[in-house]
Amino acid sequence: MQQLVDVTGTSFTPLVVVELATNTTEEAIEWLLSRIRDKQEIGGADLLVEQLGLGVGGQEKENPHVFLVGATRQRLLSGAEEVGLFKEYNDGSMRGFTCANKHNFTEFMGDGDGFLSKAECQYIVKHELDTLRAQSETHVPGHSEAKLYPGKSIIRRLQSKGILIQIFPLHEQEDLKRLSFTWYKRVKLSLQPLDAIRQYFGEGQALYFGFLEFFTFALVPMALVGVPYYLFDWEDYDKYVIFAGFNLVWCTVILELWKRYSASLAYCWGTLSRKKAFEEPRPGFHGVLGLNPVTGREEPLYPNAKRQLRIYLVSLPFVLLCLYLSLYVMMIYFQMEGWAISVHVEEPTFWTGILLFIPSIIYAVVIEIMNLIYRYAAEFLTEWENHRLESSYQNHLILKVLVFNFFNCFASLFYIAFVMQDMALLRQSLATLLITSQILNQFMEAFLPYWLQRRRNKKMLRKVQKRRTLDGQELPLAEQVRLEADMSTYLGTFDDYLELFLLFGYVSLFSCVYPLAAVLVVLNNITEVYSDAFKMCHVFKRPFSDPAANIGVWQLAFEAMSVIAVVTNCALIGLSPQVKAYFPDSEIQLILWIVAIEHLLLAFKFLLSFLIPDVPKHIQIRLARLEFESLEALKKKVRKLRRPAAGNRKPRAAGAQLHPEFRAGS
Amino acid sequence: MQQLVDVTGTSFTPLVVVELATNTTEEAIEWLLSRIRDKQEIGGADLLVEQLGLGVGGQEKENPHVFLVGATRQRLLSGAEEVGLFKEYNDGSMRGFTCANKHNFTEFMGDGDGFLSKAECQYIVKHELDTLRAQSETHVPGHSEAKLYPGKSIIRRLQSKGILIQIFPLHEQEDLKRLSFTWYKRVKLSLQPLDAIRQYFGEGQALYFGFLEFFTFALVPMALVGVPYYLFDWEDYDKYVIFAGFNLVWCTVILELWKRYSASLAYCWGTLSRKKAFEEPRPGFHGVLGLNPVTGREEPLYPNAKRQLRIYLVSLPFVLLCLYLSLYVMMIYFQMEGWAISVHVEEPTFWTGILLFIPSIIYAVVIEIMNLIYRYAAEFLTEWENHRLESSYQNHLILKVLVFNFFNCFASLFYIAFVMQDMALLRQSLATLLITSQILNQFMEAFLPYWLQRRRNKKMLRKVQKRRTLDGQELPLAEQVRLEADMSTYLGTFDDYLELFLLFGYVSLFSCVYPLAAVLVVLNNITEVYSDAFKMCHVFKRPFSDPAANIGVWQLAFEAMSVIAVVTNCALIGLSPQVKAYFPDSEIQLILWIVAIEHLLLAFKFLLSFLIPDVPKHIQIRLARLEFESLEALKKKVRKLRRPAAGNRKPRAAGAQLHPEFRAGS
Repeated sequence: MQQLVDVTGTSFTPLVVVELATNTTEEAIEWLLSRIRDKQEIGGADLLVEQLGLGVGGQEKENPHVFLVGATRQRLLSGAEEVGLFKEYNDGSMRGFTCANKHNFTEFMGDGDGFLSKAECQYIVKHELDTLRAQSETHVPGHSEAKLYPGKSIIRRLQSKGILIQIFPLHEQEDLKRLSFTWYKRVKLSLQPLDAIRQYFGEGQALYFGFLEFFTFALVPMALVGVPYYLFDWEDYDKYVIFAGFNLVWCTVILELWKRYSASLAYCWGTLSRKKAFEEPRPGFHGVLGLNPVTGREEPLYPNAKRQLRIYLVSLPFVLLCLYLSLYVMMIYFQMEGWAISVHVEEPTFWTGILLFIPSIIYAVVIEIMNLIYRYAAEFLTEWENHRLESSYQNHLILKVLVFNFFNCFASLFYIAFVMQDMALLRQSLATLLITSQILNQFMEAFLPYWLQRRRNKKMLRKVQKRRTLDGQELPLAEQVRLEADMSTYLGTFDDYLELFLLFGYVSLFSCVYPLAAVLVVLNNITEVYSDAFKMCHVFKRPFSDPAANIGVWQLAFEAMSVIAVVTNCALIGLSPQVKAYFPDSEIQLILWIVAIEHLLLAFKFLLSFLIPDVPKHIQIRLARLEFESLEALKKKVRKLRRPAAGNRKPRAAGAQLHPEFRAGS
Repeated sequence: MQQLVDVTGTSFTPLVVVELATNTTEEAIEWLLSRIRDKQEIGGADLLVEQLGLGVGGQEKENPHVFLVGATRQRLLSGAEEVGLFKEYNDGSMRGFTCANKHNFTEFMGDGDGFLSKAECQYIVKHELDTLRAQSETHVPGHSEAKLYPGKSIIRRLQSKGILIQIFPLHEQEDLKRLSFTWYKRVKLSLQPLDAIRQYFGEGQALYFGFLEFFTFALVPMALVGVPYYLFDWEDYDKYVIFAGFNLVWCTVILELWKRYSASLAYCWGTLSRKKAFEEPRPGFHGVLGLNPVTGREEPLYPNAKRQLRIYLVSLPFVLLCLYLSLYVMMIYFQMEGWAISVHVEEPTFWTGILLFIPSIIYAVVIEIMNLIYRYAAEFLTEWENHRLESSYQNHLILKVLVFNFFNCFASLFYIAFVMQDMALLRQSLATLLITSQILNQFMEAFLPYWLQRRRNKKMLRKVQKRRTLDGQELPLAEQVRLEADMSTYLGTFDDYLELFLLFGYVSLFSCVYPLAAVLVVLNNITEVYSDAFKMCHVFKRPFSDPAANIGVWQLAFEAMSVIAVVTNCALIGLSPQVKAYFPDSEIQLILWIVAIEHLLLAFKFLLSFLIPDVPKHIQIRLARLEFESLEALKKKVRKLRRPAAGNRKPRAAGAQLHPEFRAGS
């Protein structure tokens, strides 16, 4: 990547792009740039920043207020210490990086070039910009409508006031080429390069792809069991008891295994023991001025009671209404289904045979459309609920979307299975839903954005070529920045996880009646890897890396689904003629047995998730060793300095906290 | 309390008594005392210690190796810092005590006299003794069989080798008198003095009494609902549906409320955010020499695989055998019951009417005896499993005992309710079990130890009076120490919680068929407060205080019971004639409805325990504020010292960890 030269005369690699609105006053720009460049002692961010020259394209149309931010190597290292980055120490353990003993870290060579990955550098710059706080300023100079509050983040404020349009990290063409080659550009029988993905996109992305891969492998045994069912036509709805039993164990076990695998990954990536930073209010949050009870500072607050009212009096009824609508659509589907069957019965030709599938296909398309519309509505509502923290916003959004999507996708299947008890229809409906939604998803998710992006790129390239002949393949920096600024923004792993969640539901709930489902999901996941990888590398702006230690609330969602799967599979077993044959006289006996077994299985499931430690033993030992060492170091220090300085001792005692999971040799 | 004078000439208040075996060599005593007295710089404990003079009793019989340990005030304060004691700061929050800013703590007056309670001083002395570690010694001088390992606790080693017989804190007669007066010596309508109990006995005890009180109050509404059922003879087994519904909600709600109340208590007592210390191996642990993977030191290790073998091949079969035996005894009880009924039917007189109750009473007594025997067996087995940590030992013991006691006490009731479906017998059996076990428990728990202790005390007092006339009421120190050394050792809150657990089971599972159960349990709990308080103050040695933040694994046990209660109450509702009347045609419909409702209730219960925060909002805010402040202090420091010293920064970063529960204003 090209080098830039800051006003101070330091040459630097641009890492992050900051784009301000075209109507930003010169005064505001001046002030912001000086705040970014100021030394930390006087409250600045101590970063390097330079304005981007106008591109070769139409100077008249382009936004002149695009800035490139970078930092010196020394600043990045001290920033790494501030954000609490964990790196491999020379004894093989992962430790919080400190500048003072930087030479003890394995990967630190010479002056530390290449010690931090570009994604980490970008994360650090983002963090430093985010924590640039207002001091005595009451408003942004030149923009009296944009009030500032002492101690609150300037960047967040600029974002919520629309002065800052976007802030994003730059792609690196070289690394990207290398990554995409090992990732998806060759046909291979190897795993995804998770470490390289993490290097380039950060831990959150890498965990998603790790989960996708894990889920796919976990499905292989189920797919292998399913294929003979299909080939030898075992689908007499009799043998499915064994398959249901298999499902029931499977969905419990894989989630426990994933938890352990994810802990291993997070440990190696240094995010497992890293502490979360104090969360800033999200940019969209607004309220009236008040005292924050935690920081004691004046800032916009929004009464919790008001938010609760919005949630319970507006959002909740809205969600219920949507569920009712979904139910209504389902009933229409069943009417269509009934009509199609009656047509086929009257006149059983090839064409009426195909007609049988039409209602399911239409219903599947309608479900996808409803999900999409609901998604926007849920985002709007959750935004309107005005959550203060991003995490709280995310939790409420995920809860809303999950409930609706679960109901929308599975209600008809539950109805067919347990009310109509028609296993042939269940099988047909499941197959149609699964295949249609997969095709639609792949189209919506990868092809459509790619096509839009391609059109945009072409226009830009044409513009570039119109002015001058392109030397070499690499675009000039200004063009690259403007190209990336125009790319769509990647909105996080939400939709990707949601898709996996629904697929997990299809296979764990009902795959016993349609054993080919697992095969279909495996195939879908393989193409999903390719399309997601492609989309990440070429369709979207590079996202800031997100130091995640696990898949967060999704783990909970998948576990909830696996509980529902146990109940559903038990009920399906109870419905099977094979099992019914054991209780020819009394259906009550059968039901009581099924209920008893289901309770035992649920109890066993909870016991299992309680007994299997979430973190593998060898990592528990490493964590405990680190804590033991810091405790020992502390003791030595206390012994030397009998009277430590004020405010010095207490927080350090927290470092001596023992990992609660650890029971060495017990 | 009298003052003693150490060899160094410092006068001190004796806090803790250490009793060594009579055959301990002079060399070993010399060495131990010097290690205790040594300055911390050279690895000693820096405490004061003096040998107890022989009492007025028979010099020939008494153990001469009794030592009194104390400390200077300054040493206690620095010890308070080492153990991480939390105290109220002058801004009203709870903070880790540090000597450097001791004057900022609310209760610190003058030179700090009375700042630490006696129980805290004793805890500190205990901690300092426990962390007195072997240096270059390979064995205890004069006892070549007692090997020492560098870095391991000396006291634990002496205990496991039988050289140290016991170590216990001294009672304070004055404080004890005051405490027992406010606690149980006057008839009053006030709450227990939980703060005073915590001051004298520590947080673990205070939480037990707090839980006992909370549980009693929680039962009051149930008792109030139950009384009219009894008075107006509503027990036609028809109206109990309402009561079962009430039970079901009740047991979920009170446990959530308790969690919040307990967090409030623990916050005020400073144990909520206090970190657990690194756990030492328990005294009874043995093994072959190996390298501890955590500390990297040589110490006895016991392979986990061997322990697992012992657990699964010996303990588990033994527990199953005991369960089988308990089942066998139950069957004998049912035979006796059948015989008694047949006698009563043949010849219905008053005496045969009484005979009806005899089998239940015998069975209740047998249950108590079996529980008692099993308890010893479980302790023996768990000891034999050779757990390395006390916490692991406790968890395995509690699991064993809980499973058996639950089965032993409730199996017959479940059998009567769901297999025999005889609600009259269930009611009679429940009443007899409850009343008999309460009477037996009160006798075993308080009266018997009291009577034994009284006999012992009398003997000692007679001895004292034989030699000289007693001046005043206070015993001379030497006599007090020897009296207390002879008292029984309090074995922790295990049995007390177990009793509450079973009582909770009786009321939450079956009280709908015998609404008076809640009234009986309330009465029992009131006498329990008195007998437990008396027992703590006068029957047992004073226990070391235990800085607990919650009731630990018992919370889990009670929650498991409440889940079982939901299932049981749903089933009981399903069995009621009232509900059956709604489904005259189809019992299958009834069962399916009951199962569906039960599942919904369980789901709702889990949702509830997920939604209700475990820590009340105002305490969350205080915790977050503390963490925010330490983060700010850290930032200021980083800004000042651009290059902090090695090993200084990292552990402190952990102090900046945000309380995960905290979502300010969201």
